[in-house]
Amino acid sequence: MTTVSNGRPTQADQALRDRALKVLPSGMYGHMAAKFLTSAHPQYMARAEGARIWDVDGNEYLDLMCSWGPILLGHRHPAVEEAVARQNALGDCISGYSPRIVELAERFTGLVNHADWAMFAKNGTDATTLLCTIARAHTGRDMVAVARGAYHGAAPWCTPYPKGVTAADRVNLIYFDYNDIDSLEEAIRGNESRIAAILVCPIRHDSARKQEMATAEFAQGVRAVCDRIGAVMGMDEVRTGMRINTAGSWDGFGVRPDISAWSKSIANGYALAAILGADFLRGAAATVYTTGSFWYSANSMAACLATLDQVAVPGFVDGLSQIGSALADGLVSQAAAHGFTVAMTGPPTMPMLTFADDAGFRLGVAFAALAARHGVYLHPTHNWFICAAHTPDVIAEALQRTDAAFAQLADSPAAQKEG
Amino acid sequence: MTTVSNGRPTQADQALRDRALKVLPSGMYGHMAAKFLTSAHPQYMARAEGARIWDVDGNEYLDLMCSWGPILLGHRHPAVEEAVARQNALGDCISGYSPRIVELAERFTGLVNHADWAMFAKNGTDATTLLCTIARAHTGRDMVAVARGAYHGAAPWCTPYPKGVTAADRVNLIYFDYNDIDSLEEAIRGNESRIAAILVCPIRHDSARKQEMATAEFAQGVRAVCDRIGAVMGMDEVRTGMRINTAGSWDGFGVRPDISAWSKSIANGYALAAILGADFLRGAAATVYTTGSFWYSANSMAACLATLDQVAVPGFVDGLSQIGSALADGLVSQAAAHGFTVAMTGPPTMPMLTFADDAGFRLGVAFAALAARHGVYLHPTHNWFICAAHTPDVIAEALQRTDAAFAQLADSPAAQKEG
Repeated sequence: MTTVSNGRPTQADQALRDRALKVLPSGMYGHMAAKFLTSAHPQYMARAEGARIWDVDGNEYLDLMCSWGPILLGHRHPAVEEAVARQNALGDCISGYSPRIVELAERFTGLVNHADWAMFAKNGTDATTLLCTIARAHTGRDMVAVARGAYHGAAPWCTPYPKGVTAADRVNLIYFDYNDIDSLEEAIRGNESRIAAILVCPIRHDSARKQEMATAEFAQGVRAVCDRIGAVMGMDEVRTGMRINTAGSWDGFGVRPDISAWSKSIANGYALAAILGADFLRGAAATVYTTGSFWYSANSMAACLATLDQVAVPGFVDGLSQIGSALADGLVSQAAAHGFTVAMTGPPTMPMLTFADDAGFRLGVAFAALAARHGVYLHPTHNWFICAAHTPDVIAEALQRTDAAFAQLADSPAAQKEG
Repeated sequence: MTTVSNGRPTQADQALRDRALKVLPSGMYGHMAAKFLTSAHPQYMARAEGARIWDVDGNEYLDLMCSWGPILLGHRHPAVEEAVARQNALGDCISGYSPRIVELAERFTGLVNHADWAMFAKNGTDATTLLCTIARAHTGRDMVAVARGAYHGAAPWCTPYPKGVTAADRVNLIYFDYNDIDSLEEAIRGNESRIAAILVCPIRHDSARKQEMATAEFAQGVRAVCDRIGAVMGMDEVRTGMRINTAGSWDGFGVRPDISAWSKSIANGYALAAILGADFLRGAAATVYTTGSFWYSANSMAACLATLDQVAVPGFVDGLSQIGSALADGLVSQAAAHGFTVAMTGPPTMPMLTFADDAGFRLGVAFAALAARHGVYLHPTHNWFICAAHTPDVIAEALQRTDAAFAQLADSPAAQKEG
């Protein structure tokens, strides 16, 4: 059967989906399952280079998702690829660590202001979990306070869809509202001496809602509460790392956490996570036993060093932010010209587009589907990610394509129903 | 300062250790920390090729640890490296899966007898954790039975050194003794209807004790108990996978688990884990939300496909077993010739050497240190791993070196104290 969508072929994708139904539960799992995007998004990708990705049917897209964060410099960035090839020629996962782990720990402690030591793992969830364990080891306490609805990973203690999760997995969590110190005070009241850590994201980037920047009052308030009750202040930089402030996302507020969890962008797509901590947590970190078969593989550390070389160039985040702002400004104007009101929320490097009065993301999904058909890969209900390969030319090209998507949206039933 | 050990330089290693003390908790963490080996083992490795590894001071070793399992074919195996290079030229961690995930799920379900579907992750711990979550989702029950002292990973629910672990992390675990069905029956008595899964390793490979093969009675008994009480039978193949029976380690007993966790060896050193399940768990697996930023990276899946190409060659495990048996036989004879009694336990592909009457592993540690000084990298208290690069010539060379180590051990204070 020949399947096409808006003139673009989809046969190869459909054939893989059919095969997958037999050997992958429900055909696909996890955050990249196409069901979380739109019916116009392909499930399978064949190739990537810079800011562009190609699906298995040969359709090309300007990639605004950057693999949900990992791609910070662009797909297959030459300096990163060269560093990995050089390391891999020596060996990746050897019996014993490579010197890269020392170089990388030195690099991170030099770059991130609160960090005196580093540990490395493979998943963002490894890092957030280890953060909590180290805080518990240090304080001898069991509870961790987190913001309601915040995403801290996909292990039983934190996964957003808790099927198969037991009550015990979360009995030591307490919840507060983001950007609301009163709710934090209320949540911990009476349990102050049991709180090992307050774990917080630098911005509110919960799924399927507008993003919200932290207020200085909230950031400073979290720090003050931790200091008052003797809890460890933990920051989840997994999604935000190197896209807000390379010295630490709340450094502009004068707020430093005691320990932080990083992953995604730090190695431009290679599997790596980092836990960075202040000196006073060094002893606790050393007593916690955690490890993984591949945590010592050198390729990802070489990739991270090469990525941080680029990150360390002065103005790196400012440059990404300018790119993101140009995209956001263009989209807002474009939407208005076609009769839509959209908001771009979050930091410019992690933009999220939402339509006004768009219950159930009906317009958002319709727009994302049309964008995909016109060759822009973006998400309807999750923030996007800007990378260094998003040059002004790429943004201009993306805006040409989204303009066509908005035009088509304005003529579509989705928009008519709204009007 | 110049540091040498048995005529072998150690300056570069020492310099890295000194630097690491400032930026890594206690200088090093995890299972490859040199403190778990001997004072003669280097912490840092520079290079690997086939069966050989070189430390940062240029000292060469025949590697009997295979990176604690991941290296199944030899370091930098050409077919694996070529497959990774080919995939990486297209793209590794793209916005969207590569077709490799479908090909790999098809491959695993064709290879492992109990498997009807597959999921993939990054750590062995990801796989064992997900196994338990899927069993809980399927049964609606909360408890998991595991063997006392068994290693199932290093997350809070299973890490062997539970600093920073809370009581809640383990409140749903119950413990039985390996190879003892009566103890399993006793452990679950009264809680039969609460047991979601019995999770078991194919052999007893607890740290710092002789390895123990499962009895057919035990294997069949675990299966029977699961069937009787309606629990999911989970098998932890993370350490044993592809080194005992590629169809499933208990297939020779006629015993198939319902779900199994794999990692380490499956991609010859690249970071990958797999969860394989029977058809009746497909629905539960689809309802569990689990994911990771790098779970879709294609390089490790390409590496796994190339590794399984080799594994699928008839007689693959038999070949590895013959190599392992030749090594074991040689070591036992050699030890006897020098006046020592040693036992080689576990499957031939995962041998562990223990000295008779060796409280505190005094002789074991002394021997491992001497072996390192003579250029054989092996562990004093953990099983070793055989790989396809351990050709008869390599084993002969290793035995020459261990002979010198045994000779030196016989003359050492460690042996004298024993006599």
